[in-house]
Amino acid sequence: MRQIAFYGKGGIGKSTTQQNTAAALADLDNQIMVVGCDPKADCTRLLLRGKRQATVLDTIRETEEEEIKLETLVTDGYGGVKCVEAGGPEPGVGCGGRGVITAIQTLQELGAYNGNLDYVFYDVLGDVVCGGFAMPIREGYAREIYLVVSGEYMALYAANNISKGIKKFASRGYARLGGVICNSRMVENERELVEEFARRINTKMIHFIPRDKDVQRAEINKMTVIDWNPDVNQAQEYRELAKKINENQDFTIPTPITQDELEELMKTYGVED
Amino acid sequence: MRQIAFYGKGGIGKSTTQQNTAAALADLDNQIMVVGCDPKADCTRLLLRGKRQATVLDTIRETEEEEIKLETLVTDGYGGVKCVEAGGPEPGVGCGGRGVITAIQTLQELGAYNGNLDYVFYDVLGDVVCGGFAMPIREGYAREIYLVVSGEYMALYAANNISKGIKKFASRGYARLGGVICNSRMVENERELVEEFARRINTKMIHFIPRDKDVQRAEINKMTVIDWNPDVNQAQEYRELAKKINENQDFTIPTPITQDELEELMKTYGVED
Repeated sequence: MRQIAFYGKGGIGKSTTQQNTAAALADLDNQIMVVGCDPKADCTRLLLRGKRQATVLDTIRETEEEEIKLETLVTDGYGGVKCVEAGGPEPGVGCGGRGVITAIQTLQELGAYNGNLDYVFYDVLGDVVCGGFAMPIREGYAREIYLVVSGEYMALYAANNISKGIKKFASRGYARLGGVICNSRMVENERELVEEFARRINTKMIHFIPRDKDVQRAEINKMTVIDWNPDVNQAQEYRELAKKINENQDFTIPTPITQDELEELMKTYGVED
Repeated sequence: MRQIAFYGKGGIGKSTTQQNTAAALADLDNQIMVVGCDPKADCTRLLLRGKRQATVLDTIRETEEEEIKLETLVTDGYGGVKCVEAGGPEPGVGCGGRGVITAIQTLQELGAYNGNLDYVFYDVLGDVVCGGFAMPIREGYAREIYLVVSGEYMALYAANNISKGIKKFASRGYARLGGVICNSRMVENERELVEEFARRINTKMIHFIPRDKDVQRAEINKMTVIDWNPDVNQAQEYRELAKKINENQDFTIPTPITQDELEELMKTYGVED
């Protein structure tokens, strides 16, 4: 069972990329569980075609412990992907990260990890800025990390910062970096820039996803692109990404760069100024 | 002294909107301090024309307490705006929100709030998902909140969630909602949708900022639009927003809506399906 987390700047397209990857891996006959770790509970929306999933934390709050059933917390989505939303604390109260760990532990106690799972995906909120949202790594659940970026400065800045967190935990655990996924924002020299950035932090750009309006079209219809129209080009892009992740055997401890190096990189590729 | 925080979904344009508003208010002869509360420390970048500001938390970590000087932590940016970056904990360790409060308290002890400040702006990371990032509200610093949104579902979902946090703290403090700022993403019926959303949560859409490429053009040059070219239309939009905030006297306790109501709203305005 491979346990994978996607991290990246807020708004970069983590959830969409993650769900399309899960859908494509399901099409390759993998047993998959997706655990949405964003308190907004929107990480499985496309796989569930917009159907709302009761969150683990809400269920814990509202149900007697002995009454909590796995069937309430897990719903089958596209391709049989098991969809879970951890949920969050009351807005503005408590630690979101701690809530996620409570949710994961509840899933484990109820046997969600038993059976023949090939993949568990954790879709984690934003950049790892605090210990809370690094929890799935810190607690040893997510062992394989992919960074979702674009060629924009702040996206790479966030990814570099996250790689600092991964490096920290790599020394005392199993977390490893599997690669950088470029979700294109049509920035000049984007592919070259992200390839070089990945190389510098001791990993590779595992796939370059071109920008395509079909992603929005599918989203408006509350579906992954894979589900909405498997014949469009963008569906093929996600299948390629899934295949690369499926075959990936190249896991590293990242070597974060300094802010000066990052700014230099942006200048070299002519993106700033 | 008005103490204002901008909240909203990650990637919605909070920092850009906030810095342009500060720049426009400075042009109206206001004394302003901007406290960046995003661990990425990018909240004052445009005001400082790309010049990097030492963060308060880094300085605390690296300097003997009695050696810390206000001049190190505060740099004058465009229009004399005092720029501060709180900074963050080590990536993946500690609570980002607690770090922000430590930073604000240090500023206070060093006298940063003395003098004739008309405005202090707090630019806070992402949606209020945990107690940490609600800290500036919880601790009674940010008393006037603006929600930055677009007409997209997840942006409104996050804003509604944040309004739950504000409502919670309003009962025991002074935090009030000043309005919703629509940072347009060119969604169909966006203006009407956001106006109605604002009305439902017991506030108003204080300004609709049209999408304009000049924002990116200015950003590439590491400037606010106001600084880069005060004559373009978008500069006028930010001036209007600043004027409205300057004259705003309408502060409310929000009435968050349910997820069903929000989905219904999206359907009514034809945005989903």
